[in-house]
Amino acid sequence: MEGIISAGGSGGTELVTAAMRTLPVGIPKVMISTVASGNVQPYVGSNDICMIYSITDIQGLNKISRKVLGNGAHAIAGMVKSCIPKVKNKPAIGLSMFGVTTPCIQAVVKELKSDFDCLVFHATGTGGQSMEKLVESGLVKGLIDVTTTEICDLLMDGVFSAGEDRLNSIISTKLPYVGSCGALDMVNFGAKESVPQKFKERKLHAHNANVTLMRTTIEENKYIGQWIADKLNQMKGEVRFLLPLKGLSSLDSEGQVFYNPKADAALFDTIENNLIQTEKRKLIKLNHNINDPEFSKELVKQFKKII
Amino acid sequence: MEGIISAGGSGGTELVTAAMRTLPVGIPKVMISTVASGNVQPYVGSNDICMIYSITDIQGLNKISRKVLGNGAHAIAGMVKSCIPKVKNKPAIGLSMFGVTTPCIQAVVKELKSDFDCLVFHATGTGGQSMEKLVESGLVKGLIDVTTTEICDLLMDGVFSAGEDRLNSIISTKLPYVGSCGALDMVNFGAKESVPQKFKERKLHAHNANVTLMRTTIEENKYIGQWIADKLNQMKGEVRFLLPLKGLSSLDSEGQVFYNPKADAALFDTIENNLIQTEKRKLIKLNHNINDPEFSKELVKQFKKII
Repeated sequence: MEGIISAGGSGGTELVTAAMRTLPVGIPKVMISTVASGNVQPYVGSNDICMIYSITDIQGLNKISRKVLGNGAHAIAGMVKSCIPKVKNKPAIGLSMFGVTTPCIQAVVKELKSDFDCLVFHATGTGGQSMEKLVESGLVKGLIDVTTTEICDLLMDGVFSAGEDRLNSIISTKLPYVGSCGALDMVNFGAKESVPQKFKERKLHAHNANVTLMRTTIEENKYIGQWIADKLNQMKGEVRFLLPLKGLSSLDSEGQVFYNPKADAALFDTIENNLIQTEKRKLIKLNHNINDPEFSKELVKQFKKII
Repeated sequence: MEGIISAGGSGGTELVTAAMRTLPVGIPKVMISTVASGNVQPYVGSNDICMIYSITDIQGLNKISRKVLGNGAHAIAGMVKSCIPKVKNKPAIGLSMFGVTTPCIQAVVKELKSDFDCLVFHATGTGGQSMEKLVESGLVKGLIDVTTTEICDLLMDGVFSAGEDRLNSIISTKLPYVGSCGALDMVNFGAKESVPQKFKERKLHAHNANVTLMRTTIEENKYIGQWIADKLNQMKGEVRFLLPLKGLSSLDSEGQVFYNPKADAALFDTIENNLIQTEKRKLIKLNHNINDPEFSKELVKQFKKII
């Protein structure tokens, strides 16, 4: 198949995008839709579906639909007729990043990019899901899952949850896994007024007008630590989990707004006390912040050992 | 300008789509974005922006981003290099439709399409906004606004509200307006589990896996009727408002799941009792369901009188 294009309302969009989502990444997919200016997550999922809002209904031709449908047709023609330049094939790996763990991931990618095709995913829920879908599809050789923050949002009802299945792709495939605690100091919400009532008195930080971060507590971190240890214990491949003892994000270093060594200690202790270490499954504690060069060096070193 | 393409995360998407939204419909606009598998309404608005989910972060090239960015580039190249066939220019009019009022609109369009370029809008909130934006831009000569259902979603917190400004474009421009009560028997929500707790016991109908409809009540219909009458009374151009006494949608005819003559009567009576009729502003009652051929004939007849 060279490509797929369709046009429809909510029913047609649901029907056709379900088929589009089964196609590999890169096969051109264009969906012209009356519902493409709204929440398209159920339709797009973790796929490269190109959604075009139709403006007018899909109901015959008029001066608007001629332009929009024409553009859609020319878009897929352009995609199908052209080739994407071939490059040398390097083995691909997945990495998880957030704004507050960017220095760490950038340093890791710099070290590994000559040997690996580094796929960096934004830990927005959909990002973690996309990363693990590629694991299941056999398209990556391993993960450097630095930023497991989606687990906070899963357990505390934040907006960037990747669901209960987070980490399950590694359990089922046994691929090499280097993980860490990136941004487990925060739960994500939308604009400040959207933070649930029960959390209004908590330590909140406005990341921008549409994103509000909430510091996780000692109690929450015990809960998160237990959840993570339970998942890691189910992994039967090579696993290294690195604890950044001097802080989980750029907001969690000394003097920063989320700095809280007691909350971090609760997380670290819970993981350490509940993780069943084996020859293949190891915990590594580092006396650094996650964004320190020493920490990213160790991530790279451990990953090279198990890949 | 021949076209515009960009790639970015949430910040870049917000920045660039604001510029894209100022461009006319039909100018190719491609936004490759990490946030294109979520609620894109703030970015797309009522414009034909083509959103492509980047899957991986916009952070260098990898096997995924090469394909997605390459496809985006070829899409805009295809759109820019090709022409859309010119057709004879007819005066344009706007019509509002929903799945449950489709037979009515199809019959109206069939009668009018030889004389008018019929722009049919899906009443999804964005649809009504798009329609009224064209009114304000002087791009349509009048409306046959059969499907005013977005008012239900505005007043009862459904997901397809077009905002408080619905109908205001007719008030400000005084364009000819034929309106009706299409789908005022329903409020739209997303998947069944997303229906607000307070409505869980109400009469709900699963339209599909992602759309749940809630029957409006007598009390709600009085409120809706008052809101409509207040807006119509502000219109100073030619206005005809048609009441389909035998039901507001295909789900509201005898034997169907939303059939409720008492609720409909509350709506009709409130509109009739509050509408200030004049030589230019007239209420027309028809003893038919909105999808009956007699109803669409009358819509066409009234529209031809005032256009």
